[in-house]
Amino acid sequence: MAPIDADAGYALADLAARSGADLHGDGRVRVTRVATLERAGPGSIAFLANPKYAAMLDATRASAVIVTPEDAGRTALPKLVTPTPYLAFARIAAVLHPSASPAPGIHPTAVVDAGATVANGVSIGPHATIGAGTALAEGATIGAGCAIGRDVRIGARSRLDANVVVYDGCAIGADAIVYAGAVIGADGFGLAEDGGRWLRVPQVGRVVVGDRVEIGANTTVDRGAIDDTVIGDDVKLDNQVHIAHNCTIGEGTAIAGCVGIAGSTRIGKRCRIGGAAMISGHLSIPDGTTLGGAAVVMSTIREPGAYSGSWPVQKYQDWRRSAARLRQLDRLAERVAALERTWRARESGG
Amino acid sequence: MAPIDADAGYALADLAARSGADLHGDGRVRVTRVATLERAGPGSIAFLANPKYAAMLDATRASAVIVTPEDAGRTALPKLVTPTPYLAFARIAAVLHPSASPAPGIHPTAVVDAGATVANGVSIGPHATIGAGTALAEGATIGAGCAIGRDVRIGARSRLDANVVVYDGCAIGADAIVYAGAVIGADGFGLAEDGGRWLRVPQVGRVVVGDRVEIGANTTVDRGAIDDTVIGDDVKLDNQVHIAHNCTIGEGTAIAGCVGIAGSTRIGKRCRIGGAAMISGHLSIPDGTTLGGAAVVMSTIREPGAYSGSWPVQKYQDWRRSAARLRQLDRLAERVAALERTWRARESGG
Amino acid sequence: MAPIDADAGYALADLAARSGADLHGDGRVRVTRVATLERAGPGSIAFLANPKYAAMLDATRASAVIVTPEDAGRTALPKLVTPTPYLAFARIAAVLHPSASPAPGIHPTAVVDAGATVANGVSIGPHATIGAGTALAEGATIGAGCAIGRDVRIGARSRLDANVVVYDGCAIGADAIVYAGAVIGADGFGLAEDGGRWLRVPQVGRVVVGDRVEIGANTTVDRGAIDDTVIGDDVKLDNQVHIAHNCTIGEGTAIAGCVGIAGSTRIGKRCRIGGAAMISGHLSIPDGTTLGGAAVVMSTIREPGAYSGSWPVQKYQDWRRSAARLRQLDRLAERVAALERTWRARESGG
Repeated sequence: MAPIDADAGYALADLAARSGADLHGDGRVRVTRVATLERAGPGSIAFLANPKYAAMLDATRASAVIVTPEDAGRTALPKLVTPTPYLAFARIAAVLHPSASPAPGIHPTAVVDAGATVANGVSIGPHATIGAGTALAEGATIGAGCAIGRDVRIGARSRLDANVVVYDGCAIGADAIVYAGAVIGADGFGLAEDGGRWLRVPQVGRVVVGDRVEIGANTTVDRGAIDDTVIGDDVKLDNQVHIAHNCTIGEGTAIAGCVGIAGSTRIGKRCRIGGAAMISGHLSIPDGTTLGGAAVVMSTIREPGAYSGSWPVQKYQDWRRSAARLRQLDRLAERVAALERTWRARESGG
Repeated sequence: MAPIDADAGYALADLAARSGADLHGDGRVRVTRVATLERAGPGSIAFLANPKYAAMLDATRASAVIVTPEDAGRTALPKLVTPTPYLAFARIAAVLHPSASPAPGIHPTAVVDAGATVANGVSIGPHATIGAGTALAEGATIGAGCAIGRDVRIGARSRLDANVVVYDGCAIGADAIVYAGAVIGADGFGLAEDGGRWLRVPQVGRVVVGDRVEIGANTTVDRGAIDDTVIGDDVKLDNQVHIAHNCTIGEGTAIAGCVGIAGSTRIGKRCRIGGAAMISGHLSIPDGTTLGGAAVVMSTIREPGAYSGSWPVQKYQDWRRSAARLRQLDRLAERVAALERTWRARESGG
Repeated sequence: MAPIDADAGYALADLAARSGADLHGDGRVRVTRVATLERAGPGSIAFLANPKYAAMLDATRASAVIVTPEDAGRTALPKLVTPTPYLAFARIAAVLHPSASPAPGIHPTAVVDAGATVANGVSIGPHATIGAGTALAEGATIGAGCAIGRDVRIGARSRLDANVVVYDGCAIGADAIVYAGAVIGADGFGLAEDGGRWLRVPQVGRVVVGDRVEIGANTTVDRGAIDDTVIGDDVKLDNQVHIAHNCTIGEGTAIAGCVGIAGSTRIGKRCRIGGAAMISGHLSIPDGTTLGGAAVVMSTIREPGAYSGSWPVQKYQDWRRSAARLRQLDRLAERVAALERTWRARESGG
């Protein structure tokens, strides 16, 4: 299944084998890159997953396409046919556009403590700092400007992009990706009242991150107050997510951008949390829950399912009226109840 | 129009010429700095744009003021008169408080790949990293700790503040400002389901940023999945904004802090997006739209105009009641309809 | 009150004295660490503040516990008794888990301008940059990769973690903590319209941060446009908070994660702002106000108290119905009013 000529990309038949899709048409067509149907040119492969864009098949200049069995008849182009075109596309994109790994080695400007352990094949970028007692497993990549504290564990083949910070004692599993600017293990927001002043509560737990986790750019995950904050295997966090101390995020859960989760909340496995959702502390969300974008969760959800909650955007003047009415909603409900009572009294009395 | 004596600031007549405002009163008054009406002292110039603060004109200790023709009669101070005092103030502030540019040159601690191209007048700060194939145009400034990947383009006179990260292949136009901690070009949140697990979808597009764009501190703009994420000329993004993969932001649009925009959404030109607004993916917003703070947009907006949508804050107990009533709103509407039907039946039948 | 044997932690009697709690039981018990009731083992001390978890007292393997007088009778373990167990716990945790201070000194890779002033006992980490005119007071700690501009003041014993950015001219008080990735003093979002284009308005104010302030990871505080942005003493900001230009945050106010506050807003003293609350610009909130999570504040709050406002999350189908009804709420209210009028006409006429 090696490419016949790497410079000229891959034969379509080869990509069929690598993606698990069925080949229809000329398998010798050479493919060098992925593209959208709209902007594809010769040498590129595009996919159609949503039938509403099927018209684009006619005009595309792609050399090959990936389609469902239902759509296969709509184009005469060489094609890969599969019930899951997006998945096949993802596999093919990984073949055509492999991520460039930096060469192993420690950049001379990096500051690596003598008490750190650096396995084979590790790459440490310029101006990175690695603390004492920290262990970087085989093939890990530490980006430029990363600051990794003491006694940290970074798993095999995990990649930390530029300017990531990992505080003392935290652990990240294997094959994880942490994007630039993320901060893992800062203190949780723990405050005790002490005679009208705030007393800081030491945060002695860690952050423990599983395998194959992705943590988005500028996302923050706080260390636990006493026990650990735990991010399960295969969890995917988008950018600018905030996970507070002692949260537990179950395996395979995906959390979109700008989500905030307050302390000690437990999110189940395989949940999908929409962007900008905000989840209060000390509550739980069951496995398999879907939460709509910008939804605000204030108490435990007991039944899995799809949940939403946000004001539907309106023209400004309409919103002003809706908002005014909302403030009077309790009174309106009472007025309706009064009408019902009056009516019933009249009916029974009259 | 050069200052008579730079040490003593500028003559008011000079500032009138530089700002396009009319001079009323003694043009020889020296002005060294801007101030608010409330806190101004001798040597400072303040402005009044909002008539509700007109009473402050009486008490101000400013040496000169900028006012509208309508307000000109309210003060005997030397003044600049213009229909747009805030604009004149902005121009004068730029004269009185020019931003300090670092001296050109590459700091000895910076790591600049031999394959990078550095034009004349470029400044590269301490501990910055510049990758192979990257080109920094004339007069660009790269702050301390920035990590600029490979094959990046930074336009003339653009300024990246400290600890900015730009991923491989991204392009930033001329005269742009990127504030500290911003991350440009991290992977979009692209996941395909593969037998119950998430498979990462390579993100092969770039981020392309126009001229005169500002990108706020800790803001993130993700690279496109296939095509590019595009930030048009003159777009202004405040802090902690998140722009997901394949968004297009039209020219001149201003987006306030904490806004999140999900993938593949198209924002028109000259829009104004209020702080903390959250915009779903795969939708579009027309040119010239104004969106209120914290509004949540879940579907395409077809007509330009002003839109809002958020729960108006209430006293906690009132909110509890409103929220409970909201959950029963569908039932309430049915009860009203039942009353109407009963009434009509009675009227027609009785 | 020194520990009898530091290697074996502290005697419970010693911890009683240090925390101000009453000792019940054997004061010679050795305690080495804090733990939760659930996961405690020998040598650890746990606390019970919420009676709903009292059942855990029976099963805990802790060597000692901290309880209220009301709960003291529920366990035979050696214990510390106090009306404020969480506060005593915080004090004891600080004794058992002191934060590790880095050794004083300037790391050889740090770039410290010759015009900076560095007091005794200051620690400057690898790859940090300190600008001209900046003064670091006694015992201050500057983390790896921090970029501190010119003419900055950092107070005694204050700690900036890795990759913090402080812009020119800003001031931070004593005993403050700034977590990784925070950005203090970037320009505010100041734009004036100039013939259809945005003209940038120079931001000439500073950020002034008080004593004992905490600023969370990746939080941003913008410099003032003309006057300063002011963060009062004992203010606590969680992660990913955004404070816009010219805000004033009163002493002792605590602001949870993901909160955004637009420009020129004044937050009173000792307020508690829930996570993800969004507060508009140019308004004020009185001392002692509590704001619920995700609440949106669009106008000044005049009366202290507890405020909330967010859509209560619902099952998706229920939300769809509620949202549709909300859009018709104005019409529904008119229909109720019409029913009332008709009824009254009938009653009076009939």
